[in-house]
Amino acid sequence: MAIVLQDNQYGKAETRVVRIYRDTERHEIRDLNVSTALRGDFAAAHLAGDQASVLPTDSQKNTCFAYAKERGVGAIEEYALALSHHFVDDIASVSRARVDVDEYRWERVAVAGAEHAHTFVRAGHEVRTAAVTTSTERPVKASWVISGIKDLVVLKSTGSQFTGFLTDRYTTLAQATDRILATSLTARWRYAGTDVAWDEAFGQVRQILLERFAVVHSRALQQTLWEMGSAVLAARDDIAEIRLSAPNKHHFLVDLSPFGLENPGEVFHADDRPYGLIQCAAVREGAADAGPAWELPAAFA
Amino acid sequence: MAIVLQDNQYGKAETRVVRIYRDTERHEIRDLNVSTALRGDFAAAHLAGDQASVLPTDSQKNTCFAYAKERGVGAIEEYALALSHHFVDDIASVSRARVDVDEYRWERVAVAGAEHAHTFVRAGHEVRTAAVTTSTERPVKASWVISGIKDLVVLKSTGSQFTGFLTDRYTTLAQATDRILATSLTARWRYAGTDVAWDEAFGQVRQILLERFAVVHSRALQQTLWEMGSAVLAARDDIAEIRLSAPNKHHFLVDLSPFGLENPGEVFHADDRPYGLIQCAAVREGAADAGPAWELPAAFA
Amino acid sequence: MAIVLQDNQYGKAETRVVRIYRDTERHEIRDLNVSTALRGDFAAAHLAGDQASVLPTDSQKNTCFAYAKERGVGAIEEYALALSHHFVDDIASVSRARVDVDEYRWERVAVAGAEHAHTFVRAGHEVRTAAVTTSTERPVKASWVISGIKDLVVLKSTGSQFTGFLTDRYTTLAQATDRILATSLTARWRYAGTDVAWDEAFGQVRQILLERFAVVHSRALQQTLWEMGSAVLAARDDIAEIRLSAPNKHHFLVDLSPFGLENPGEVFHADDRPYGLIQCAAVREGAADAGPAWELPAAFA
Amino acid sequence: MAIVLQDNQYGKAETRVVRIYRDTERHEIRDLNVSTALRGDFAAAHLAGDQASVLPTDSQKNTCFAYAKERGVGAIEEYALALSHHFVDDIASVSRARVDVDEYRWERVAVAGAEHAHTFVRAGHEVRTAAVTTSTERPVKASWVISGIKDLVVLKSTGSQFTGFLTDRYTTLAQATDRILATSLTARWRYAGTDVAWDEAFGQVRQILLERFAVVHSRALQQTLWEMGSAVLAARDDIAEIRLSAPNKHHFLVDLSPFGLENPGEVFHADDRPYGLIQCAAVREGAADAGPAWELPAAFA
Repeated sequence: MAIVLQDNQYGKAETRVVRIYRDTERHEIRDLNVSTALRGDFAAAHLAGDQASVLPTDSQKNTCFAYAKERGVGAIEEYALALSHHFVDDIASVSRARVDVDEYRWERVAVAGAEHAHTFVRAGHEVRTAAVTTSTERPVKASWVISGIKDLVVLKSTGSQFTGFLTDRYTTLAQATDRILATSLTARWRYAGTDVAWDEAFGQVRQILLERFAVVHSRALQQTLWEMGSAVLAARDDIAEIRLSAPNKHHFLVDLSPFGLENPGEVFHADDRPYGLIQCAAVREGAADAGPAWELPAAFA
Repeated sequence: MAIVLQDNQYGKAETRVVRIYRDTERHEIRDLNVSTALRGDFAAAHLAGDQASVLPTDSQKNTCFAYAKERGVGAIEEYALALSHHFVDDIASVSRARVDVDEYRWERVAVAGAEHAHTFVRAGHEVRTAAVTTSTERPVKASWVISGIKDLVVLKSTGSQFTGFLTDRYTTLAQATDRILATSLTARWRYAGTDVAWDEAFGQVRQILLERFAVVHSRALQQTLWEMGSAVLAARDDIAEIRLSAPNKHHFLVDLSPFGLENPGEVFHADDRPYGLIQCAAVREGAADAGPAWELPAAFA
Repeated sequence: MAIVLQDNQYGKAETRVVRIYRDTERHEIRDLNVSTALRGDFAAAHLAGDQASVLPTDSQKNTCFAYAKERGVGAIEEYALALSHHFVDDIASVSRARVDVDEYRWERVAVAGAEHAHTFVRAGHEVRTAAVTTSTERPVKASWVISGIKDLVVLKSTGSQFTGFLTDRYTTLAQATDRILATSLTARWRYAGTDVAWDEAFGQVRQILLERFAVVHSRALQQTLWEMGSAVLAARDDIAEIRLSAPNKHHFLVDLSPFGLENPGEVFHADDRPYGLIQCAAVREGAADAGPAWELPAAFA
Repeated sequence: MAIVLQDNQYGKAETRVVRIYRDTERHEIRDLNVSTALRGDFAAAHLAGDQASVLPTDSQKNTCFAYAKERGVGAIEEYALALSHHFVDDIASVSRARVDVDEYRWERVAVAGAEHAHTFVRAGHEVRTAAVTTSTERPVKASWVISGIKDLVVLKSTGSQFTGFLTDRYTTLAQATDRILATSLTARWRYAGTDVAWDEAFGQVRQILLERFAVVHSRALQQTLWEMGSAVLAARDDIAEIRLSAPNKHHFLVDLSPFGLENPGEVFHADDRPYGLIQCAAVREGAADAGPAWELPAAFA
């Protein structure tokens, strides 16, 4: 039986683009980590080592930098859309381009109570993400935009329980009626279209995720994730789907009784591994087709 | 339009199981990082916070430890198969279980030229991996086994070129007729069945990958990956498919001419980011269906 | 010539203590990483394997948890002082105890514009640190407190130059009259005594460091560090000394001229390695003796 | 009271130098991470921003690359000695130079049973280190060489106990008469002089450390470290001192009794944090003065 080349892609990963806007005294900064991945007619490169259709990853890197000047960096979704269109429009061998962008947040340093014009301090742990795919592989050229947030570390010190669960021969876990619930959330949501006020939408989704995490009494992380995700879809018609992945960052109540001390939910050990990992997707029925939007590079390995 | 729960799974990630065999004076060690992920009838947990069908991730962790004693840890594929069968067979709500295992290698310390009976030193950078999925979601219960290797860092100091590539407006890269080629390889191959001599197969695949990397004159990393992958399929009929993911760990020739020095491929700067990222799959035509084997947890985020 | 045991210490590193205050509906959280290191009469443990004077590191860990309940966790300096006094006072074999504490910052989640009572989101990148040493090795028992901050990532997009430097045969660097200056600051300052309003002092030092970074026109990172450090000493008489360590996180201006584009300080590549590393200490003349305060565990290796 | 500049140094950290020897068909590779740190007359740079005496860190980086060609890279101690002499000899403002080198190990790929001439695979976890200081601050110019190894992960599955220890109010640990002992060793040893067969000495020290770890029945990690360190000094007169730092990588015996299973030292949980941290120094009485050899850059922060 023949051996055939199947899925393949290539690109430049983790180009660290920093764009300063200095048109006025008050500078702005956009701090990005950009990855490109191209698919298309690259069989000859694999099968025969022929590079005639292969745009070097170095050129892709250059394009990320040049576009930061030529097109500018507004919302990362816009920047990624522009790049992905460029690759499928201008490079004949490319039929699909995916551009992933991580954005790191900076805040202004306050000097004597006022925001400084050109000095910044890294803010937050969390990272804003975008993953834009543009494809000409179907009859109509189309783009899909997935926005997201990762490393959003949240914790609630009450309002969480885990009871009434299934037990088997290997179960030793005690019921918990009041526990710490903590996670480092990754959320990714797919828009139905590309005509979106990206920054405003991101801010709204982030706020809904945080509020739902805070106010929903959690009977399990599964329930909390669903409440977070479905609330996002309920609030915004332009979002077709949201996927959430949440490690259960266990905080174990320390047994202080050997030392004659009570511990009514006050002293915890934050453990590293293992951790629960809960994942779910909430989808709007009848939503636009996801196409190749979720075909992550990671799926290769 | 209604909002519905779609794909969801949960499990315990990164349980660090170390199994010592001490039946004779000469001990053996298996050092594992085990992750479980279950799918099934868990809608009530999400939608209503009802945990009656949810086996705690803590019980899954306990099972990983208990099985290391009850069933033992031979090849990681066997251990993962046993665990995945247990979850779908013994937990009513589970219709699919995926078990991922990473194995860290140890070598014996040599004392006075002889291997010591119970002292080991961590060997190598590379990690052996297995990802086993067992499902009852189809008419016939079935298992899929993906074996792999990751963090296999290889380098060749000649026998690699990159020439004749496509150029565009953003291309500045020079042709390279003799360069360093280095990568940190991730390879994953799917077996057609489950009746395999796992350790022997792993050793053979690893050796083929290394040999192909060494002896193929590389006209691009794309070609090298294809040569590696297709050689594995050619050598073993029981492998249906292989996927390779390879960062191009750039080693840039340092320009020493300002110091009056020549640099004929001798002094390089090993750069961190960005890096090229090349990925491809080689498949045997007519091979058994992959089923859910490649539905990685990572695809959620 | 005889071989002798010299410096030695042991302890429990990185105990992850999380303390919740839930006396009112509005909870408070203190999230710590605590390391203890004891010195004293431990020669028999090394030379003869005799553990009679060795308090297990497991007991030290238990003490970190128990003290979080018994004494509470206010300022990390106070908590570390209490622990270090305990070890030298209550464990006969211990003559010196060092306690290192890292504190991770959390902010309250805002719900409908109001701070939530028990839900938090990880804030900032930066970590507050304390390193407290208590010793009975001298005639008078004494404690030394070093407070600090690490991973404080700051960047200024103008107001920095690097010109007029020494050149040698290996110099190719161009003069830079306007560049990005960025670093991930580690600062540690030693107090003259232990009667300090720790939280207020920390806040003031952090603000001085940020303001000086912002407003000083930088002719080199060396100068900026000195201005930051000496300003702290000028502002607070109770600080005897400050040490600063700052990687120069290079942001290289990208050459866009091959693409017909100008780049007047707008598009940069944030590089990973190598990086400049600048370190200096500012000390108050005649300040109290540092004793063993700076004898870091790291100095062993 | 005046505020004065005290200790200060600067340099280029983590220059990733890769040197290929290709004079014959059988290539050799040296893969290094090099850091330089200079001290001297740099007060004006701090106090006045005057760079006239400051050799840019960029020039130091260039020198690392150029020396890899001009002088070559044999033993890392020799390479570091050459660099450190250059900085104090050729740069007027420099009175002390420290050069740290990490070396990553590669093995040849075997093809059809024979070592390949120019293809390598990263070997081992462990890293060989050197820290060389050359100073003209004393009447006679001198150099100090510290060699070392780090990330040497070793484990013994029996032959280790921890009993008879001191107990206090906070002690809950049980005696262990047969446990796993595992660590990730960092060892650094200082030579009395600079006329040493570096590679041979490194190999011998590494072997002694491993053998002692293996054959000494451990009554505590303290004892094991002392046995390892003192054995090195006993074997080599040219080593003045050795310092060892060893995290106790806890492997906890899993309680399988709830599942009706015995666990006689067979199934363990490899924990992450916290960990014991044991450190000691063995010194030859009357050995040559350490001078500034141990003044690590890390001591600044």
